[in-house]
Amino acid sequence: MAARGLDAMLVGQPENRRYLSGYSAADHGIAESSGVLLILRRGSGYLLTDFRFKQQAEAETEGLTVLLYAKGLFALLKKLLPDLGIGRLGFESAYTLHSSAQRLFELGQRTNIDMVPLKGVVEKLRLIKSDEEIEHIRRSVLLNERVFQKALERMARMETEIDMALEIAAELRRQGGERESFETIVAAGAASSLPHAVPGRRKIEANAPVVIDMGLVLEGYCSDMSRSFCHGKPDESYLHIHRLVRRAQLAGIGAVRAGARACDVDNAARSIIAEAGYGKYFGHALGHGVGMAVHEEPRVSPKNRKKLRAGMVITIEPGIYIPGWGGIRLEDMVVVREDGCDNLNTDATWLDI
Amino acid sequence: MAARGLDAMLVGQPENRRYLSGYSAADHGIAESSGVLLILRRGSGYLLTDFRFKQQAEAETEGLTVLLYAKGLFALLKKLLPDLGIGRLGFESAYTLHSSAQRLFELGQRTNIDMVPLKGVVEKLRLIKSDEEIEHIRRSVLLNERVFQKALERMARMETEIDMALEIAAELRRQGGERESFETIVAAGAASSLPHAVPGRRKIEANAPVVIDMGLVLEGYCSDMSRSFCHGKPDESYLHIHRLVRRAQLAGIGAVRAGARACDVDNAARSIIAEAGYGKYFGHALGHGVGMAVHEEPRVSPKNRKKLRAGMVITIEPGIYIPGWGGIRLEDMVVVREDGCDNLNTDATWLDI
Repeated sequence: MAARGLDAMLVGQPENRRYLSGYSAADHGIAESSGVLLILRRGSGYLLTDFRFKQQAEAETEGLTVLLYAKGLFALLKKLLPDLGIGRLGFESAYTLHSSAQRLFELGQRTNIDMVPLKGVVEKLRLIKSDEEIEHIRRSVLLNERVFQKALERMARMETEIDMALEIAAELRRQGGERESFETIVAAGAASSLPHAVPGRRKIEANAPVVIDMGLVLEGYCSDMSRSFCHGKPDESYLHIHRLVRRAQLAGIGAVRAGARACDVDNAARSIIAEAGYGKYFGHALGHGVGMAVHEEPRVSPKNRKKLRAGMVITIEPGIYIPGWGGIRLEDMVVVREDGCDNLNTDATWLDI
Repeated sequence: MAARGLDAMLVGQPENRRYLSGYSAADHGIAESSGVLLILRRGSGYLLTDFRFKQQAEAETEGLTVLLYAKGLFALLKKLLPDLGIGRLGFESAYTLHSSAQRLFELGQRTNIDMVPLKGVVEKLRLIKSDEEIEHIRRSVLLNERVFQKALERMARMETEIDMALEIAAELRRQGGERESFETIVAAGAASSLPHAVPGRRKIEANAPVVIDMGLVLEGYCSDMSRSFCHGKPDESYLHIHRLVRRAQLAGIGAVRAGARACDVDNAARSIIAEAGYGKYFGHALGHGVGMAVHEEPRVSPKNRKKLRAGMVITIEPGIYIPGWGGIRLEDMVVVREDGCDNLNTDATWLDI
């Protein structure tokens, strides 16, 4: 804050807020915030929230003063900011609505406070994970694998995609996960060719290709894993494409190390799929960062020329999706190290079950 | 659009987008959109999305051209808007990030297009429900009640809040609901004094107060219902407060009609709780609109002096929350009519079970 000449900073993005304060309440979309941090440059700060979250806010935070806004955030800020002698206030440009930013600027004009849009300040802190954070993430990954294996054991009893997805969502809560890190994807048959398929009442037919993409939140940290298999006996074309995706994944993992450009890691995997003639069936990026958010920086995409740094945690998840036939995606999470990477996943469901 | 001199309008808010197009994909937070509508004043328009959502976008929309952005939305807009001869483009101020609005303004400068922030244009269309929409909402409400009753039947087998919440979440999906309209609240004992309690591993003890607040999405429309009861035998103080909340709810429902101010409806219920000496334990608004979003306009709060209009659908949900003791909230959904209202709920779980 000193470098930017800020006296204080508002932080409302839920993962940034939790990262800085420990406050874990969820927002119901961006328009229904469960609170905003006001972090002061001189140290300490406030958690501004409403009546509904008072008890949780006080129980979960330390060293912050919890203030309630009965008449909305802006009415509270109008009084609080001048009282605190704040002259320059930062806010999160990429998590503040245009309409809210307008209200902040108007408030700034009336109270003679400079409102300064900030980009990625807390996100930058979150980019490199500490050893402690990596252990949190590892526990999240391992719990996610246990839930996946438990669901596989019960697969014979599951008729439809939605049965399987519900079983996974329930099991991860039973085992202590806070929640899904995203809505579990179970896609069978031709639906598996949709990278973001919504589980439906489609039956999981014998010998159908199945993609399961699932993750959970544990102690605030996310996991994210995809496995693909054939529910029965895979045919030659399935085996061929599965092996191809797996080769691409291993090539991607093999290219990860501190100093490698994200786009080069993407290309290490993508070129294998392209050379085999399936390039047009792999339309998404190879991977993304994971931490308190399930999708965060860095993007491991053909466009991102930035270098990976030690302590980043990323997914490596190539896929091939052929409309009408089905899809295969394989996804692990790795920690970037100076000389390579550590794979956080141990699950070896690589072919048919 | 004609009145505002707009040639076109971008619509990315998920419920607005679905309302206008039928496209039902969910966004993973505001930073991960599954698509944006570009609605043209001269009729028709485009659904701009990415590779992952292509098949769903084409299957669910009619009369819209699906265009994919391989290099991001802004790169596509930069080419598309001038090609379409657009001179003035509206965007949703209350669903566009400050950082995205900045990129739009920059794009506007380079391409000589006026970028116009809009507030609540589609929301205004959604405010008054058609008869067809009300029937959708009614089906959502009735399914929600069936799921609630099914969960009550199984309550004896449920040990903890989270067991009950998971059972509800799974049952509503089994019965054909798309998803929860918000994360189901099951709060037992003292936790029931948190209006937004997160279900935990707390046991539901004998004779403990329980609050269940749940809703689902069916055919795009939301339901939202709260019931409170004692898991066993309620004591006198529980009965007293329950009856008080119920009286407040009935007074609120009785005050609803087209032309009544939202704040007066709120006050009809609130004054009963205040006169009984519990005013400070009822800290939230009496209700809110429900439709494609579970929380939408109008807010039925002490601050909102606007008049209700026929065809609005609102919740009436007074509550009393006493820290350390517990809470009671009762919530129904009603349709505003010229001379009163129709209660969409039929569930009569008003006291102990």
